[in-house]
Amino acid sequence: MKVVALAGGVGGAKLAHGLALAMPSENLTIVVNTGDDFEHFGLKISPDLDTVCYTLAGLANPETGWGRVDESWNAMDSVSQLGGANWFNLGDRDLGTHLERTRRLNLGHSLSQITTDFCEAWGIAAKVLPMSDDTVPTIVITDEGELPFQEYFVARRCEPQVSAFRFEGVEQAAPVPGILEAIEATDVVIFCPSNPWVSIDPILALPGLRKAMADKPVVAVSPIIGGQAVKGPAAKMYTELGIEPSALAVAQHYQNELSGFVFDSVDERYYSEIESTDIQPLVTNTLMKSVEDRQHLAEEVLRFCEELLIPSGVGSG
Amino acid sequence: MKVVALAGGVGGAKLAHGLALAMPSENLTIVVNTGDDFEHFGLKISPDLDTVCYTLAGLANPETGWGRVDESWNAMDSVSQLGGANWFNLGDRDLGTHLERTRRLNLGHSLSQITTDFCEAWGIAAKVLPMSDDTVPTIVITDEGELPFQEYFVARRCEPQVSAFRFEGVEQAAPVPGILEAIEATDVVIFCPSNPWVSIDPILALPGLRKAMADKPVVAVSPIIGGQAVKGPAAKMYTELGIEPSALAVAQHYQNELSGFVFDSVDERYYSEIESTDIQPLVTNTLMKSVEDRQHLAEEVLRFCEELLIPSGVGSG
Repeated sequence: MKVVALAGGVGGAKLAHGLALAMPSENLTIVVNTGDDFEHFGLKISPDLDTVCYTLAGLANPETGWGRVDESWNAMDSVSQLGGANWFNLGDRDLGTHLERTRRLNLGHSLSQITTDFCEAWGIAAKVLPMSDDTVPTIVITDEGELPFQEYFVARRCEPQVSAFRFEGVEQAAPVPGILEAIEATDVVIFCPSNPWVSIDPILALPGLRKAMADKPVVAVSPIIGGQAVKGPAAKMYTELGIEPSALAVAQHYQNELSGFVFDSVDERYYSEIESTDIQPLVTNTLMKSVEDRQHLAEEVLRFCEELLIPSGVGSG
Repeated sequence: MKVVALAGGVGGAKLAHGLALAMPSENLTIVVNTGDDFEHFGLKISPDLDTVCYTLAGLANPETGWGRVDESWNAMDSVSQLGGANWFNLGDRDLGTHLERTRRLNLGHSLSQITTDFCEAWGIAAKVLPMSDDTVPTIVITDEGELPFQEYFVARRCEPQVSAFRFEGVEQAAPVPGILEAIEATDVVIFCPSNPWVSIDPILALPGLRKAMADKPVVAVSPIIGGQAVKGPAAKMYTELGIEPSALAVAQHYQNELSGFVFDSVDERYYSEIESTDIQPLVTNTLMKSVEDRQHLAEEVLRFCEELLIPSGVGSG
């Protein structure tokens, strides 16, 4: 079975890692949100892309889920000593990634080519594609005005009240070469448990993405468990947008795309309501605390996808 | 006595440090070569300026003379792991300087303002001025063609044969505000023991510099001891330019500017020849192995300058 997985940062990276462990790498394509990308200190930083790659390569900090394991912070210490811009924490090893990526982008290499080369150097076998080689910054529209994502997320610690999102320039942006082809060739598309508003929606907003997915079974894994986001501001965003944060709300968010929806046992009460909207539900333990949890959840999701692919009347037994 | 010192990297930084120890800071202005400055990984790097500042602040690596003490190299390890551009070694703490400088330059702040602020943060009392806020890259003309300085110096390890130097755009460049005023107000200008061709000449090439210095006593300290450069390619450059590398050659290089010339005891044989060109010689131990050596040489140079300032017939006892 061929799989295309869409992912944002920490939660998405965990399931992407599980999928990489649970299935043959040559059948897995991971498309990563780049709406969070920004420039800082003159360096081009791709937080979600790095989180996914570090996680797949076993280089991620297991405590935080982002950044590098065995990290040092001497460059930022030095910035702080100068009274500099230390609001976005960049570890020394992590900085090496931004340095070399920036150097190559400045030479005119594409983000996707650089990512392919970095993945090879890091020993990542699955195909990892940034969603676009074009810049598509996510703008968060808040009660304090429009904020670039990292300013909202890191500098302002998600405190401003959110009213909407904008993916700047997405109409003119192109999906990275290979994404539409991978979707056309895939058996199933999986939305990893990432923030629907600012991790998955930016990918789906790219021209041609939804059209390419139209005939494909799509399975989403809820990033909301028991009304809370495992990580990040997803639940807070739902509340500020006037929607009660829940697994059900996530299923409804993706309603037009989904064939199946995977959510946590603590949210089992939504089972029948989700089933009634023509989405096949799967209730299981979706919290990934360990690497084994990632692989286990991925295996369950893959089995669920296989069942969805069996012509109806046979698979639901 | 007011002093303006012109300096390049390691050797110049050592005497500048000695001067800062030997005299009241408010009377010392250090003008630093920025012809070596370059952009790498999208970061703006000022090697001589940082060497001077780190040395004055006690942050320099005592082993190498450049870079930071207690340095780590995790960012460059990370670049190397990616098969990236690791020809120019950037320590993690040092990177912090380049990050914050680049961020502020990209905001439109001037290199001189940034340097003033960095010096304050680092506790440097003397005034340190980059030679220009404009970009004036030193180009080394070699048998392999024209090479930007760092490409010649680091990437090609000074191997190409040198035939000339070019300071690109220097005719349109302005000295940093305060340099011409400091020279006008100074009692003496000191050329630190830096490479004449690529450290001091780029500063002297700035419009107005030589004119401002015309009425001032100028004392140079030879970077060549016993026919060898203490550090760097100065001696090799002299040879390739068809000049025997020696303290005498340095004195002749600066002939039109100098009132006095300080060189090492091992080169005492040049005393009378230098004196015959109307340059007052001072022979002493000029090799600075320790911080005490720096201060001691600076004190000797300052005494020598004071003697030069006494109306002739009194000072030459």
